[in-house]
Amino acid sequence: MKTIDVCLTPELLHLYQVEDKVVVVVDILRATSCMTTAIAYGVQSMIPVATVEECYNWQRKGFLVAAERNGEKVNGFDFGNSPFSYMDKNLRGKSIVFTTTNGTLAISKAKKAKQLVVGSFLNLSAVVNFLNEQAEDILVVCAGWKGKFNLEDTIFAGAVAERLTARFTAACDSTLAAISLYHAAKNNLEGFLANSSHVQRLARLNIHEDVAFCLKTDQFDVVPGLEGDQLVKIF
Amino acid sequence: MKTIDVCLTPELLHLYQVEDKVVVVVDILRATSCMTTAIAYGVQSMIPVATVEECYNWQRKGFLVAAERNGEKVNGFDFGNSPFSYMDKNLRGKSIVFTTTNGTLAISKAKKAKQLVVGSFLNLSAVVNFLNEQAEDILVVCAGWKGKFNLEDTIFAGAVAERLTARFTAACDSTLAAISLYHAAKNNLEGFLANSSHVQRLARLNIHEDVAFCLKTDQFDVVPGLEGDQLVKIF
Repeated sequence: MKTIDVCLTPELLHLYQVEDKVVVVVDILRATSCMTTAIAYGVQSMIPVATVEECYNWQRKGFLVAAERNGEKVNGFDFGNSPFSYMDKNLRGKSIVFTTTNGTLAISKAKKAKQLVVGSFLNLSAVVNFLNEQAEDILVVCAGWKGKFNLEDTIFAGAVAERLTARFTAACDSTLAAISLYHAAKNNLEGFLANSSHVQRLARLNIHEDVAFCLKTDQFDVVPGLEGDQLVKIF
Repeated sequence: MKTIDVCLTPELLHLYQVEDKVVVVVDILRATSCMTTAIAYGVQSMIPVATVEECYNWQRKGFLVAAERNGEKVNGFDFGNSPFSYMDKNLRGKSIVFTTTNGTLAISKAKKAKQLVVGSFLNLSAVVNFLNEQAEDILVVCAGWKGKFNLEDTIFAGAVAERLTARFTAACDSTLAAISLYHAAKNNLEGFLANSSHVQRLARLNIHEDVAFCLKTDQFDVVPGLEGDQLVKIF
């Protein structure tokens, strides 16, 4: 039986082998929710970069650029990290270069995966259906917050793992913990996360609508995946 | 209000400041359960060292030595990592040098703490009572398994955090997760942990009795703490 494992933060990723695995990168609030939304709205590709400086260089070459640090849009860029910004028909077929506090770092660290996809509650079933067709072991990489564990990414990992139990067994304790946390949270995701550090951080920035939207399940039937250095619609 | 935080593995400890905190190191299966048992049985001091080689050097100087790697006693040493080995009146007043796969590494990494104590289910209430008297923020450091998250240490962290909610607030999501996992586990700790990776690892080594004993609550009313380079009874 194939396994599903959960890496609780990118800071632990060196303890895992990614080369032979399908890796799901998750940053629910809000990077992978944004990527999912953008690809669902017809954006051709999202190009993750590590630093704000890189993003700025791409902007000077004429690209659309998105940059978020500490929950806020960086001054001078086209987009921040709100999924609503990407619900724009004018973006169809465009490429967007982006950098975020945690999500793009997680992608960068995991990009040697056999296949890397991004997941969010917004495309949960699409990701699960995609994973169910794969022959490799799965690793869910939670983006966390500045290297530390966070609840929302781990709960998403649990939601994925629970839906895959028919074909994939828990590789390690972090998968068991993620499933248990998902069980505790699933009937009231917003309530369960109300005290979580990032929801409180975003609440201080008045981003309630973003949080509520990012916790909605199955809004989009797409799976963004890495091809070369770009995230494109692979399903 | 003071905070209680949980570091899920020593591999993440560089993200935390320990100098101004009371740190509780926990390695339920079985290092800190052994230390608690030994101190409760009158051992004068436990001297944690990082490597088997160091342990061997102390042995040649005439010290009692304990060494465990991958769950098993290392050949040629006086003790391994079973709490039952330390229930011996002949050990009263003695010093024991020891090294384990995860627990002694966690102690070594956290030893700059303002005060470092070791906790286990065996001395849960004693540790909680001690912490309730402290004026500093608290950090529970889970020893994990070779850098990765484990369930039993995290559940213990949740048990501690829940008992301290009157005076200490959760610093971060890992504390909230630990409390939630403790709630899911507390009515049937052995059952909840039956699928956990280390319980299965120990089951393969036929160490059921050790696991059952290490999950018993409040067997001993002692708190071992670091003084200089030695763990001694500080309460």
